[in-house]
Amino acid sequence: MGTVTFLSDYGLDDDFVGVCHAVIARIAPDVRVIDLTHGIPRHDIRTGALTLARAVPYAPPGVHLAVVDPEVGAERRALAVRCGREDRILVGPDNGVLMPAAAALGGAVEAVDIARSPHRLEPVAATFHGRDLFAPVAAHLASGAALGGAGDPLPVEELVTLTLPDAVVADGRIEAHAVAVDSFGNVQLDVSHEQVSGTGLRLGRALLVNGERAQFARTFAEVGAGDLLLYEDAYRTLALAINRGSAAERLGLALDAPVVLEPDPA
Amino acid sequence: MGTVTFLSDYGLDDDFVGVCHAVIARIAPDVRVIDLTHGIPRHDIRTGALTLARAVPYAPPGVHLAVVDPEVGAERRALAVRCGREDRILVGPDNGVLMPAAAALGGAVEAVDIARSPHRLEPVAATFHGRDLFAPVAAHLASGAALGGAGDPLPVEELVTLTLPDAVVADGRIEAHAVAVDSFGNVQLDVSHEQVSGTGLRLGRALLVNGERAQFARTFAEVGAGDLLLYEDAYRTLALAINRGSAAERLGLALDAPVVLEPDPA
Amino acid sequence: MGTVTFLSDYGLDDDFVGVCHAVIARIAPDVRVIDLTHGIPRHDIRTGALTLARAVPYAPPGVHLAVVDPEVGAERRALAVRCGREDRILVGPDNGVLMPAAAALGGAVEAVDIARSPHRLEPVAATFHGRDLFAPVAAHLASGAALGGAGDPLPVEELVTLTLPDAVVADGRIEAHAVAVDSFGNVQLDVSHEQVSGTGLRLGRALLVNGERAQFARTFAEVGAGDLLLYEDAYRTLALAINRGSAAERLGLALDAPVVLEPDPA
Repeated sequence: MGTVTFLSDYGLDDDFVGVCHAVIARIAPDVRVIDLTHGIPRHDIRTGALTLARAVPYAPPGVHLAVVDPEVGAERRALAVRCGREDRILVGPDNGVLMPAAAALGGAVEAVDIARSPHRLEPVAATFHGRDLFAPVAAHLASGAALGGAGDPLPVEELVTLTLPDAVVADGRIEAHAVAVDSFGNVQLDVSHEQVSGTGLRLGRALLVNGERAQFARTFAEVGAGDLLLYEDAYRTLALAINRGSAAERLGLALDAPVVLEPDPA
Repeated sequence: MGTVTFLSDYGLDDDFVGVCHAVIARIAPDVRVIDLTHGIPRHDIRTGALTLARAVPYAPPGVHLAVVDPEVGAERRALAVRCGREDRILVGPDNGVLMPAAAALGGAVEAVDIARSPHRLEPVAATFHGRDLFAPVAAHLASGAALGGAGDPLPVEELVTLTLPDAVVADGRIEAHAVAVDSFGNVQLDVSHEQVSGTGLRLGRALLVNGERAQFARTFAEVGAGDLLLYEDAYRTLALAINRGSAAERLGLALDAPVVLEPDPA
Repeated sequence: MGTVTFLSDYGLDDDFVGVCHAVIARIAPDVRVIDLTHGIPRHDIRTGALTLARAVPYAPPGVHLAVVDPEVGAERRALAVRCGREDRILVGPDNGVLMPAAAALGGAVEAVDIARSPHRLEPVAATFHGRDLFAPVAAHLASGAALGGAGDPLPVEELVTLTLPDAVVADGRIEAHAVAVDSFGNVQLDVSHEQVSGTGLRLGRALLVNGERAQFARTFAEVGAGDLLLYEDAYRTLALAINRGSAAERLGLALDAPVVLEPDPA
């Protein structure tokens, strides 16, 4: 029995997600569909991409469908991509939303352009490729159809990638960036658990964040209300928060803004 | 393995939908439930009916459960209805919410009043027929129980229908109506793809909408910000929109308002 | 095929719920997961507990996972609890959220502390025990793993319970309490269908609610707009409402506030 995970920015107020489920069930009655989330902010490719990349390693091998597609109906390509790890397959638009997940799954090793896939539902509506293109292709692939038969071969080097910032670790400090801001004003940084070890930053110690004093804490409860903290989130990525406040606002951080982390010399 | 699709106005904040799923799983452990949407505006029978009618053709044959039920606990009847196409069965209140879907599925060919169904959970709560009446009946029918055993026979001519406006195509123009308005102010009309061909309206050309100039476009991107467009939505139904604005507001359109579409003589 | 029901305060905007589903599917591909609701108000243990207790009797026997966990990462224990009825198992934090459900399912008869469960995913993130601890333990138990192997034995007498008010029936009247208030201002009381029979309250008759005149009605439609009514909700529990208004506001009722119900002497 195959599995399709499904992530989108469709929300749940309308029938978009439900109709995609219906299409998959009709094509592939034995395939299980797991909704990762449909709450990605509308058209926010990067948040969709980062959320997908974090979630898929927890899912069973199979097909991972992701639809965040501001250019639906325009010229962007539509993809199915096989990854190096466990032959997992990603399906979605060629706008970068799939690529961090591909990297997390061993890298893209084979890709097809599915715009004229034999699996698509005709006529393909200009505004609903989720229903007519992506969901049917995902359903057939999860049922065991061959990737090569789902579309036209495409060199993996030609896939659209996201430009993401890249933290630099040097001289015991980290030059990081804000890569996502959640609704509480918590700021996710481009720094993994592993990158911390080469620095002077220590859990339980004070540090400077763009020159402002903060605490490297395990949980919010370890600092006072209004205090700035650096912590590892549930995916072992560094993040900034204010206990009962907004770190993004206090530090004036927009997406991609530089964030320098260094041990507090005091 | 049978399938139940499920549409309602329950929303997902409470446990209404989840408890109906629980009831179905207890009665029919092998039946798959597909949520079409639970975001129908509260008590909006017509939006529920139109959404259901559009979605069910994409779903596998089986049972289609729809609960938009402002008169729950009052005297309205409760129904299970067999349709001409693929023996699909609709389950829900007798307030018209099922009838456009029945029409889309070959018409109602057999109906039973399920108010005293042997499948119901007793005592039936006056305010939660979804749990105690509709979900259990849907579960038994999806498991293969006979429609005749689910309630008392009812002539299909006696089912409550919705009064929907009816577009008139004449003299190259269309006298249409607003049948739904979404949260962006986009206005769905009662005009199908097929009805356009007998008119002077042409994709890519200008037209008049209640005398106001508009473009018959394929996507929003083909017109400027603030411009009015007519387009075919993902279900091949005509709709009006303003690129980054509200067509309902600009044209002053409420539900059922007349909308005259005619070629632009200029 | 086992079943896991899942209730939380995670909401559906993020990928928390979806990742827990993914984790369960990876460990236990044949287990069905039924979402009861993820709309419990954030950190509201009591609403989560009461909602769970009402819903689980409708679900198939199996594992009932409930995560409302304001103290995640702090010292509270994590539990799996076997109940007297049908060997159902509850999984969640030891903060009382499981206990009303345990009572509804024959009482807790065996408990284990799962903090160091062999089923957990390591490293356990300090802020996401749903993914790393509760979901994996639920998945293994639903697949048939023994409760005793999921953690360290714990006397059921040591489980944290909720302090809930207790209605007193005496002299034909009821001294009740407000135990939940929904978004419409309807107030759920701690009075069951059975407790009414020993009183002077009669369906269809007037009564006094904290001295204010009300009607004991079957549905909202039986009273005028703005009128106060007492009614039995879908779980046969008494509740107060104003037809098209807020009973909580009109009567000034906060959680646990006393509510005296007595026959109207007039």
